[in-house]
Amino acid sequence: MSNIAIWVKYDGTHYCGWQRQPKHKTVQGVIEKKLSRILGSDIVIHGSGRTDSGVHALSQCASFTADLIMPEDRLKFALNRILPVDILVHDLAVMPDDFHARYSAKGKTYIYKVYLDKVRDPFKDSYYYHYPHKLDLDAIQKGMKYFLGTHDFKTFMASGSAVSNTVRTIHSFEVEQIGNTLEFTISGDGFLYNMVRIIIGTLFQVSRGKTNPDEIPMIVANLDRSGAKWTAPPNGLYLKEVHY
Amino acid sequence: MSNIAIWVKYDGTHYCGWQRQPKHKTVQGVIEKKLSRILGSDIVIHGSGRTDSGVHALSQCASFTADLIMPEDRLKFALNRILPVDILVHDLAVMPDDFHARYSAKGKTYIYKVYLDKVRDPFKDSYYYHYPHKLDLDAIQKGMKYFLGTHDFKTFMASGSAVSNTVRTIHSFEVEQIGNTLEFTISGDGFLYNMVRIIIGTLFQVSRGKTNPDEIPMIVANLDRSGAKWTAPPNGLYLKEVHY
Repeated sequence: MSNIAIWVKYDGTHYCGWQRQPKHKTVQGVIEKKLSRILGSDIVIHGSGRTDSGVHALSQCASFTADLIMPEDRLKFALNRILPVDILVHDLAVMPDDFHARYSAKGKTYIYKVYLDKVRDPFKDSYYYHYPHKLDLDAIQKGMKYFLGTHDFKTFMASGSAVSNTVRTIHSFEVEQIGNTLEFTISGDGFLYNMVRIIIGTLFQVSRGKTNPDEIPMIVANLDRSGAKWTAPPNGLYLKEVHY
Repeated sequence: MSNIAIWVKYDGTHYCGWQRQPKHKTVQGVIEKKLSRILGSDIVIHGSGRTDSGVHALSQCASFTADLIMPEDRLKFALNRILPVDILVHDLAVMPDDFHARYSAKGKTYIYKVYLDKVRDPFKDSYYYHYPHKLDLDAIQKGMKYFLGTHDFKTFMASGSAVSNTVRTIHSFEVEQIGNTLEFTISGDGFLYNMVRIIIGTLFQVSRGKTNPDEIPMIVANLDRSGAKWTAPPNGLYLKEVHY
């Protein structure tokens, strides 16, 4: 048996997220079905983590063990031939036995995309968050700095999550304006459930003047989910890279 | 009764084209349903022409007569509030009584988008034609010139179309390379069914060395559909503008 990793790019618009579900189309479910067909046995893949319905990935990683009955390049080629057009396996490699896409991950980078037109754009709605209001980028950038470093991010976790250790470290957090779009890039050692979307949601509350950027350290310190009131929509979020 | 025109931007990926069909979701069908709900009577709209399944529009025009029970801006706003996110009415105006989106049209401009990566991109497949082969842009540009002017374009019409006059005039035809994408822009007094896609298909046969660009005048002159063998896929095509 070989320990195999795949790196997957997908448009999450038409999937009920990453994780396999009995009655819904998911990215994991589709990949497992196609891999099982090619390799002639039931394959179970382990992603680096879940992505929600509508969230995209530029490079999600997943690992699985299988009897590799063909060369790696051949398997990648065969897989991409039968995968739907909105999922692409851009890399595939045999890994050391102790590699696991989830447990070996040392961190992740996410991108969050926003477009700023007054009017919504039918071609952007699945790939960006639409922000039609006045932008206060200075206030957003002021707020962003407070997220850097090691904090207990309990405030920025979707309620109902059962995670005991909510301390995470954000290594970098940047924003770039390109024409009428914004692209946030955030890297850290790990992210709680919905953490990126709640952070981005809080920053747009700042842009709209509903939260003062200097309140953010207090909102973090309070460890109270009700302090971060808004979760930005999934369609602007992209898992860019998993770090190993 | 008022004679009203709307200009519509839509992502055609998830529609069976423009034209209303009893059992399938179409752009015309969806707009008519929403307009009828707002205006309280059955509305029938007339597009400038059909677009096929998967074809997009930056500005399709359609006209209809109705009892305008609210100001134009209010109707546009109400309509966009209930239209799905992949359809936007970007303009709405009361027109002279003799205006008709189809019969008043003096010409159209289409865009055709292509991306040139070796590997397919899950985020581009619904919005571009994927050309992974070696590009011969010089040969394409040489071939494009032969389409300019007035010709009988019978060769470049999908077989089975029942149109008596197949003479059309192409006013301009340009291509721009932006990074790894190509954008063709073609304007004319009218286009036969599938004409743009068959012209683009022929140009990529030229790029692949399967057709010599200097054969194009002969392919046009032969008036024989079998001379233009390949129809480029719908997803790269955008109706950019209808000229009145």
